Amino acid sequence: MDPKETSIPAMKDLTIDNITENTVLINSQGPDQRLTYVMERLVTHLHDFARETRLSTKEWMAALNFLVRVGQISSDVRHEFILLSDILGLSLLVDAIDHPKPPSSTEGSVLGPFHTHDPPTIEHGSSMSSDPQGEPCLVLCTVKDVKGNPIEGVKIDIWETDSTGHYDVQYKDLESPDGRCVIRSDKDGVFWFKAIVPVPYPIPHDGPVGQLLLLLKRHPWRPAHIHFMFEKPGWDHLITALYIRNDPYETSDAVFGVKQSLIVDFTSADAETAKKYGVKEGTKLLKHNFVLVGEKETEVLRDKNALAALKKLGRKVKLIDHLPVPDVD
Amino acid sequence: MDPKETSIPAMKDLTIDNITENTVLINSQGPDQRLTYVMERLVTHLHDFARETRLSTKEWMAALNFLVRVGQISSDVRHEFILLSDILGLSLLVDAIDHPKPPSSTEGSVLGPFHTHDPPTIEHGSSMSSDPQGEPCLVLCTVKDVKGNPIEGVKIDIWETDSTGHYDVQYKDLESPDGRCVIRSDKDGVFWFKAIVPVPYPIPHDGPVGQLLLLLKRHPWRPAHIHFMFEKPGWDHLITALYIRNDPYETSDAVFGVKQSLIVDFTSADAETAKKYGVKEGTKLLKHNFVLVGEKETEVLRDKNALAALKKLGRKVKLIDHLPVPDVD
Repeated sequence: MDPKETSIPAMKDLTIDNITENTVLINSQGPDQRLTYVMERLVTHLHDFARETRLSTKEWMAALNFLVRVGQISSDVRHEFILLSDILGLSLLVDAIDHPKPPSSTEGSVLGPFHTHDPPTIEHGSSMSSDPQGEPCLVLCTVKDVKGNPIEGVKIDIWETDSTGHYDVQYKDLESPDGRCVIRSDKDGVFWFKAIVPVPYPIPHDGPVGQLLLLLKRHPWRPAHIHFMFEKPGWDHLITALYIRNDPYETSDAVFGVKQSLIVDFTSADAETAKKYGVKEGTKLLKHNFVLVGEKETEVLRDKNALAALKKLGRKVKLIDHLPVPDVD
Repeated sequence: MDPKETSIPAMKDLTIDNITENTVLINSQGPDQRLTYVMERLVTHLHDFARETRLSTKEWMAALNFLVRVGQISSDVRHEFILLSDILGLSLLVDAIDHPKPPSSTEGSVLGPFHTHDPPTIEHGSSMSSDPQGEPCLVLCTVKDVKGNPIEGVKIDIWETDSTGHYDVQYKDLESPDGRCVIRSDKDGVFWFKAIVPVPYPIPHDGPVGQLLLLLKRHPWRPAHIHFMFEKPGWDHLITALYIRNDPYETSDAVFGVKQSLIVDFTSADAETAKKYGVKEGTKLLKHNFVLVGEKETEVLRDKNALAALKKLGRKVKLIDHLPVPDVD
């Protein structure tokens, strides 16, 4: 925007009809075009929401108090705003925008609020769960590129609940991480570990997000799954999960994470596999091949999708640092 | 919506293009039509915002962490989400929607985050401020209806900062409320009290809202004002403020609260007034007549405005408990 146009308007007597343009104008004084654009869209949608619902003072106050509670129940190990974003479908949407997937690559899923930054690094074949009540399983995986070449040295974060459907951080007396690990792929792209068969579980519903679900007559359940996160420089960061087929919540995941391509079947280890991997014959077995996409390829696809989508929305934009801003030239 | 239409869709493989309709559908299972409508508009705007900005995972995470901080700095005496709503123009907008004002009535202004529920009730003529550094002033007011009839027994909450621009609750060692009071209008609609001449002050900018203002190159200042809130059964709740003319921030209030009709002048008490009200001659004097609107009259006007505005927006609605919901019959 031309600097001459950004002089602050005389902001008096603001009304239902002119408050938006004035707020946008006063928010447009900074040099960061991306921030200006994001704030312009944010304020416009926020105000349109209030105008279209004729939001009452009572509802406004209830919403602001709700948001305070969402912030206040959050901690180092519980991010209630991520949970709120999850149940509103925003998390899935943002992941789909930021991590477009070409055909044959592994699709993304929601991060959820329970990823932590201090899991133990384990060797191939170790167990990531110490829950004696869990049904043991063997997980044999590879990580490759779209052409089938193995990718070595990928850092893989894996996390799942215990057999009661709780993550380690949900226990107040937790002494050390459990049900989570970091593992690295070998030169053949292989990584394997022992875990427990995942179970469906409700997302934490003892807080404000649970109250909202209750008001909306929605259940808080997620189908059984194991989370995976893949990181290696040069490769697009992949956050995903594997879901177990025929879970009762397969088609009604409270956080919208399930994708057909991420639904997997357990088989059981035959004698040879059992011997090779040091498990009992008949142990539940999960085999999966993950496919990563190059960072550059993802960037090109993301840019292309952004420009196409915004053109379709009738917005004239250009990309700065791969993010859209209005193209006013 | 017909119950048959609200069966949960098979929510798998949700994409940028279908996540919104599916989220809306799963949020539409409850019996509360107003909640369903508000959530439908909320989810639609939230998702459109992400699609129009192609919101990145990094920006999404930064926003969620910002919201956690807004919640966590909030307390019984600091509501950072109200402050956030204030600087985004939402507070002014909601007040304008909920409290429409017919001509000749007193306009509303923003509540702000510093109203408290425990101010001392004072007698007419008492002082609401004990700040010896403040410039004393005498405030003589009436509260009447639009026809000029006095309204007796209105509960009036009044609050202002001290001479340094801080509200009492901003002091950690506060022993008792200061700079705030409750007073009641007499049979002539009169209420009067002693205060100090208000000063401009910055809204609290040591928290996340202050950081946002900094990013946006916005100043945090509000022009000098005194807050007033009027309550009496049968009368529309009035939240307003009086602003002192020629304040340097008169046209750039950080929270968009100033209205021309709320800008007032100080005069000074002449000998007669000084004697009558027990102040020194020459004491700064503020006289103002407030005009309340009947609750019923406001309700009728609010309903009329809502229906007209939504018709203009092309939305077919009906009112339930005076709030719009889609009219699908």
